[in-house]
Amino acid sequence: MTKQFHDNVLPSDALDQLFFEGRTYNGWLDKPVSDEQMHAIWDLVKMGPTSANMQPSRIVWCKSDDAKRRLAELASEGNRAKILSAPVTAIIGYDIDFHEELPWLFPHTDAKSWFDGDEAGRKVGAFRNSSLQGGYFILAARALGLDTGPMSGFDNDAVDKEFFTDDPRVKSNFICSVGYGDPDSIFDRSPRPDFDRFNVIV
Amino acid sequence: MTKQFHDNVLPSDALDQLFFEGRTYNGWLDKPVSDEQMHAIWDLVKMGPTSANMQPSRIVWCKSDDAKRRLAELASEGNRAKILSAPVTAIIGYDIDFHEELPWLFPHTDAKSWFDGDEAGRKVGAFRNSSLQGGYFILAARALGLDTGPMSGFDNDAVDKEFFTDDPRVKSNFICSVGYGDPDSIFDRSPRPDFDRFNVIV
Repeated sequence: MTKQFHDNVLPSDALDQLFFEGRTYNGWLDKPVSDEQMHAIWDLVKMGPTSANMQPSRIVWCKSDDAKRRLAELASEGNRAKILSAPVTAIIGYDIDFHEELPWLFPHTDAKSWFDGDEAGRKVGAFRNSSLQGGYFILAARALGLDTGPMSGFDNDAVDKEFFTDDPRVKSNFICSVGYGDPDSIFDRSPRPDFDRFNVIV
Repeated sequence: MTKQFHDNVLPSDALDQLFFEGRTYNGWLDKPVSDEQMHAIWDLVKMGPTSANMQPSRIVWCKSDDAKRRLAELASEGNRAKILSAPVTAIIGYDIDFHEELPWLFPHTDAKSWFDGDEAGRKVGAFRNSSLQGGYFILAARALGLDTGPMSGFDNDAVDKEFFTDDPRVKSNFICSVGYGDPDSIFDRSPRPDFDRFNVIV
């Protein structure tokens, strides 16, 4: 039986850590992120819901100097130093043939057949759900006491060729540095929209 | 100065609430979700990072019987009862003209000009970032002691016509019920992929 937490609002310091004080960092302290921490992030990300448990994300964690250099060369100029200075930058990609994995990821029915022959639909589903997983990724890293720096300024096709060479069905979505943020590298927060601006209750 | 939480791993019961014990519910207890709770979800969602603070999500919260019925009629058969029985189901849409808001959302530079005339790029950015916000939405609801039921089985075009009539530049992404999940409405968890299956460190 699953545990429920009805009406249990997380303590304010947890909400601060996840949402209110979490920031996108542009620079990083000289402190490494361990392989165990990368595993711990994934162990949270994979628990988040995806449509039919499709789990489309495929992640390349660029940790070595060589990998960071190769990625930075394919990023927009403003993102290069961020990638080179971060302990690790994850390339979050998505597999447009995720349905091949559904027989074991969603074993109680033939979900693979829902996607067979519908590549256009798979592309939309994989992009949506790997982006959802990107949201889990950012909050998972924060939940573990790490900071993130998500970026979409890079040459997607070139990154796919360079990092997903053996998996031509995997496309890059966005990249995200992980580490210990340098407080001097952030600016004031941008304004946030009030509920009534972008929401309506009907 | 922003508060930092370096190496502060959230307590295990918080990680349970957010990730390990959080589930997608198919049925709901007969207990309402208040307007204040919907506002509280948004107040967390809007803090999550989006590219250039674009905040593309536009949310219609279907709370009245009439709105639920209209939405349920446009959903796949398997999702109708879920929508009708949930206290509220949010339609998470995205504005492909989000760049019109950037002068106040990202005031320190002319970010609007980055997107002017590039509708194809805006569609990709809006879809990616509203899906990211969808990930924040699910975890925000859980952080507040609520459960979620995200769904993509519905007629997007028909929902856009029905619910975004006055905003033809807003497209539906996915829908998500919010409430207090009925523990009898869930099945065993589907398998989760080990790190080495979908990740590589280079």
